[in-house]
Amino acid sequence: MTVRIAVAGASGYAGGELLRLLLAHPDIEIGALTAHSSAGDLLLKHQPHLLPLADRRLQDTTVETLKGHDVVFLALPHGHSAELAGQLGDDTVVIDCGADHRLTSADDWARWYGGEHAGTWPYGLPELPNQRDRLVGARRVAVPGCYPTVSSLALAPAVDLIEDEVVIVAVSGTSGAGKSLKPNLLGSEVMGSASAYGVGGAHRHTPEITQNLSAAAGRPIKVSFTPVLAPMSRGILATCTAQLRDGANVREAYEKAYADEPFVHLLPEGFWPTTNAVLGSNAVQLQVTVDEDLGRLVVVAAVDNLAKGTAGAAVQCMNLALGLPETTGLSTVGVAP
Amino acid sequence: MTVRIAVAGASGYAGGELLRLLLAHPDIEIGALTAHSSAGDLLLKHQPHLLPLADRRLQDTTVETLKGHDVVFLALPHGHSAELAGQLGDDTVVIDCGADHRLTSADDWARWYGGEHAGTWPYGLPELPNQRDRLVGARRVAVPGCYPTVSSLALAPAVDLIEDEVVIVAVSGTSGAGKSLKPNLLGSEVMGSASAYGVGGAHRHTPEITQNLSAAAGRPIKVSFTPVLAPMSRGILATCTAQLRDGANVREAYEKAYADEPFVHLLPEGFWPTTNAVLGSNAVQLQVTVDEDLGRLVVVAAVDNLAKGTAGAAVQCMNLALGLPETTGLSTVGVAP
Amino acid sequence: MTVRIAVAGASGYAGGELLRLLLAHPDIEIGALTAHSSAGDLLLKHQPHLLPLADRRLQDTTVETLKGHDVVFLALPHGHSAELAGQLGDDTVVIDCGADHRLTSADDWARWYGGEHAGTWPYGLPELPNQRDRLVGARRVAVPGCYPTVSSLALAPAVDLIEDEVVIVAVSGTSGAGKSLKPNLLGSEVMGSASAYGVGGAHRHTPEITQNLSAAAGRPIKVSFTPVLAPMSRGILATCTAQLRDGANVREAYEKAYADEPFVHLLPEGFWPTTNAVLGSNAVQLQVTVDEDLGRLVVVAAVDNLAKGTAGAAVQCMNLALGLPETTGLSTVGVAP
Amino acid sequence: MTVRIAVAGASGYAGGELLRLLLAHPDIEIGALTAHSSAGDLLLKHQPHLLPLADRRLQDTTVETLKGHDVVFLALPHGHSAELAGQLGDDTVVIDCGADHRLTSADDWARWYGGEHAGTWPYGLPELPNQRDRLVGARRVAVPGCYPTVSSLALAPAVDLIEDEVVIVAVSGTSGAGKSLKPNLLGSEVMGSASAYGVGGAHRHTPEITQNLSAAAGRPIKVSFTPVLAPMSRGILATCTAQLRDGANVREAYEKAYADEPFVHLLPEGFWPTTNAVLGSNAVQLQVTVDEDLGRLVVVAAVDNLAKGTAGAAVQCMNLALGLPETTGLSTVGVAP
Repeated sequence: MTVRIAVAGASGYAGGELLRLLLAHPDIEIGALTAHSSAGDLLLKHQPHLLPLADRRLQDTTVETLKGHDVVFLALPHGHSAELAGQLGDDTVVIDCGADHRLTSADDWARWYGGEHAGTWPYGLPELPNQRDRLVGARRVAVPGCYPTVSSLALAPAVDLIEDEVVIVAVSGTSGAGKSLKPNLLGSEVMGSASAYGVGGAHRHTPEITQNLSAAAGRPIKVSFTPVLAPMSRGILATCTAQLRDGANVREAYEKAYADEPFVHLLPEGFWPTTNAVLGSNAVQLQVTVDEDLGRLVVVAAVDNLAKGTAGAAVQCMNLALGLPETTGLSTVGVAP
Repeated sequence: MTVRIAVAGASGYAGGELLRLLLAHPDIEIGALTAHSSAGDLLLKHQPHLLPLADRRLQDTTVETLKGHDVVFLALPHGHSAELAGQLGDDTVVIDCGADHRLTSADDWARWYGGEHAGTWPYGLPELPNQRDRLVGARRVAVPGCYPTVSSLALAPAVDLIEDEVVIVAVSGTSGAGKSLKPNLLGSEVMGSASAYGVGGAHRHTPEITQNLSAAAGRPIKVSFTPVLAPMSRGILATCTAQLRDGANVREAYEKAYADEPFVHLLPEGFWPTTNAVLGSNAVQLQVTVDEDLGRLVVVAAVDNLAKGTAGAAVQCMNLALGLPETTGLSTVGVAP
Repeated sequence: MTVRIAVAGASGYAGGELLRLLLAHPDIEIGALTAHSSAGDLLLKHQPHLLPLADRRLQDTTVETLKGHDVVFLALPHGHSAELAGQLGDDTVVIDCGADHRLTSADDWARWYGGEHAGTWPYGLPELPNQRDRLVGARRVAVPGCYPTVSSLALAPAVDLIEDEVVIVAVSGTSGAGKSLKPNLLGSEVMGSASAYGVGGAHRHTPEITQNLSAAAGRPIKVSFTPVLAPMSRGILATCTAQLRDGANVREAYEKAYADEPFVHLLPEGFWPTTNAVLGSNAVQLQVTVDEDLGRLVVVAAVDNLAKGTAGAAVQCMNLALGLPETTGLSTVGVAP
Repeated sequence: MTVRIAVAGASGYAGGELLRLLLAHPDIEIGALTAHSSAGDLLLKHQPHLLPLADRRLQDTTVETLKGHDVVFLALPHGHSAELAGQLGDDTVVIDCGADHRLTSADDWARWYGGEHAGTWPYGLPELPNQRDRLVGARRVAVPGCYPTVSSLALAPAVDLIEDEVVIVAVSGTSGAGKSLKPNLLGSEVMGSASAYGVGGAHRHTPEITQNLSAAAGRPIKVSFTPVLAPMSRGILATCTAQLRDGANVREAYEKAYADEPFVHLLPEGFWPTTNAVLGSNAVQLQVTVDEDLGRLVVVAAVDNLAKGTAGAAVQCMNLALGLPETTGLSTVGVAP
């Protein structure tokens, strides 16, 4: 079986990571690669690490270019996927790395992104309760945000053991911000410096984390979420804490939740996650502990924001959608040091 | 007035930063520089950035070497200051950058550091309520830990406005770990990676933060503290959050607390702290906000762990101890980018 | 004596560094701060590390704003200084951090920058032979480029000892490129990566280095210069090599050349320069050796591109121009680690 | 065909990279993993990125442990391979990532490493003239040093076009220094800093580069080589320059030399190599130009020191030794950004 795919937004970081992973996938033929302002450029100009595609040129992002593929990956700013997907039809599996179809609440959409909600697609985090089945054979998939991926996996196994409020501080590399040319993303500003942003619940991933944890809990969970930019290109390290209810056996809950998961790995006791251990890999590394003085759960989780946090999840969901083995073309081996 | 000083532990990062600052202090004459295993070395081998002291050699850390100075700075591992200070006598101002005399509770000392408590010295964070007066004319000063400095300043103005539990996640550069030769501190491991340590309340700065906030509040404050190592040499960015009581006017409290403080700077609304803005400076930059959905206070604060977080505080306290203007030789100007 | 200064281009990296240094200069009063597209902004938005100027706003870069100061520093793109300087008159000392007045050859200017040459000003590298006298009392100064500063100081003492061709490979931090919003300067691209640019003699600093070394030698010196971008904000480490003539006593030549220079420091044998040892300082650290197998001189030199490489040199030249002690407000102490 | 392999030195960076690559090789079964002082540890403690081997423990490095494998990779300090290889016998292919068997001259060995030369093995850089044939079916392979790999590939195609002396300045990440616990390799020292080492021809890779280029040229080539440490974990960017003879068509020579090479890639004109484009990949990216003013060739080449620079070359040579397709398990796709 050969699956012919296209990538819209192939000049960006998510698009580049999709292609990096798809080049290692045994069942894939890489078709159209499209971009917006960079259409016409050699792909090599934007993705100098993808030598097997060094001769390829970027095309315009249009329905004409994208149609006729088995799978189309969208790595576009939010607001662009609904119309494209509608025109591509159900013959094509559409996997959207953007935010358009993640939220279930139209009110949340309107508040956090503005405008009309384009509808909800199956949510591409199969490790959450009851999600995998919805992805098998799906024709549309909404790939989760990077922070929601790591935060939700870090806390979902504990939702029955904790009080209703969680605090998450997630340290992230800069590639999560994409290639946008903003002064605060210049290397001179980023190197040697840490900074918080979207403080006070202002980051758009807050409602997505809230949605995931509340769904897992079956009750509203309140999420205090602060992202912190650190001087590294990739990786998120999330520190997640919540007040425990009495008598919780925390470790057992995590062992049970992830025993059969190929990509979520609870580390042995005494080991703690680092982002470089998951660089380029589809793994999430977790460790859990209890602050006995406070009766608080503390979970630390590491993910590569571009891999399992975006493009790896997209490939994992493609595998599920097409009926391929879920782990095909994906790895739990990081590139370190 | 010329003050003759000595530095014990001059080969380490805290010692180097003390000398960097003291070289810019108009009233200082630099006397003995001592070390342990590096005694006999040119200082330049360990502090290649201190060219004006390029001809100096490190001596042994002994009472004989240190006595006869007006001020002795101790930048030593914990457990070494009490005996040295006892032998130096009250003619000499002793400023300890180590942990020995910070905690007020002998039980806390025994639990977190082990062994017998050497007693409590005036605590070198003059910006906390009721602390400055204890430092004026003091002969002994315990310089605060770097995390307690930034965390306590970030939350002290709010203790009357919040519930009893705070969550602090502090991203730190690696110099806080000193020059100890551990594999996880190698550049190859650190660069590109974030990692948590001392998770679950295991870091020794937890009781110090708890002590400071509880003293400021006049009631026990519970502190969930997680330090995160990020790929930068210097700087701490602390994200601090707590549930607000009703009706709190948060910004006003911070404006009032720090209006007259030369080194603690509440940023204008819309600006957020970054660690590179305080690199090398004695400033703490703060911003506060309220997550209205949750009713939570979120404070973000940046400090240079070696400067205001250690050596700058030591110089500030020396100024107070000697009756010099508090800001002499210190700056709120960072080295950026 | 109080000197009232203005900075044109105060929103950029060179402008910020000028202000950082001038804030520590005892004789300076900071007047107008101007910018182009950022006029009207709080300076703090662009220079968050300059807390003493936190209330200042950027004005437009016009003659009206700049006139009436004792000294005007220009930190502007090339091509802007001649007209401004002409309108400011000789009452004002003008110190240009840009390239306009560095080259002595109009042909070189036309080839490397294009357009008509605006004339040559005294060249602000007093450590080169016969340069200091031209700077004392000068009303106009052309501050050298960062690469020419370190390369010329690294090789000038050896020009009589070497053959006519030198090879320089200089590793630089990213701040040398300024705040221009280019994709290759994004933190995500820069971190973890090294890249060469301007290869094959294409960098505009090549004729400036050639001019300096040829003038020092009294004969044409050919310069092969390659700059390499490394993942750090500041600093240049230049490796400079040339074939030695017979019988050269290299070390003696360097000792003699820089014995009385306050800012150029030949390290003791066995020590090698690092860029973090000069971070924020006005020092150049040098080491020299001979590859005995090849009979080649190898010199390694470190400088902070923004400090001695730009803004520090500008302040040093201001001191000379005004008859102040040359080292006033400048330091050889770096900020490390 | 399943090839059972062992890795001696599996706790280090080269050992970790070997395992990372071998986990992606379809024909490999991973057998014994050995170490010296870390024997008995979980591999995960030293290689947290190798989750598929998370349950493995390190054994002692002894002949008993290593024998019985089809291939044994040695990632040991120099001086250890001859005796081990002798005891393993010719049934086992031994691939030595260390220096013991690279040099052909016993005098060079004695001068640069000391002691008796253990003999010369086929040199694992198949892209050099006449090398590939010696590797096909070999039972012993000496993997080249990282600097010699990139430097030799950068200059070998030009040896007939240049004069006899070349200058190489190679900027390297810190992983090339391994996990040795030296102060100058601490993250706090490395980040934000560049430094040269082994200056003046003192680095042990100098005779290896000289050997390669002289062999390719058929005449002695003199090599001025300076390595520079930059703040990145991986990657080498080598700038290589030499005086051209008249009439050289440089680009054609490189195109011809590498037209059929799967891992050496001459970039299209206008593109320049970056180390992050080859991170984790087995590719070498090259660009060549001529400084027309000087008549000098300048070549810039990028390699991942741990991948093609060490472990990737080892796997490539294993493939050749075993008669597998040379590219099996290897990739030209980097992990960027």
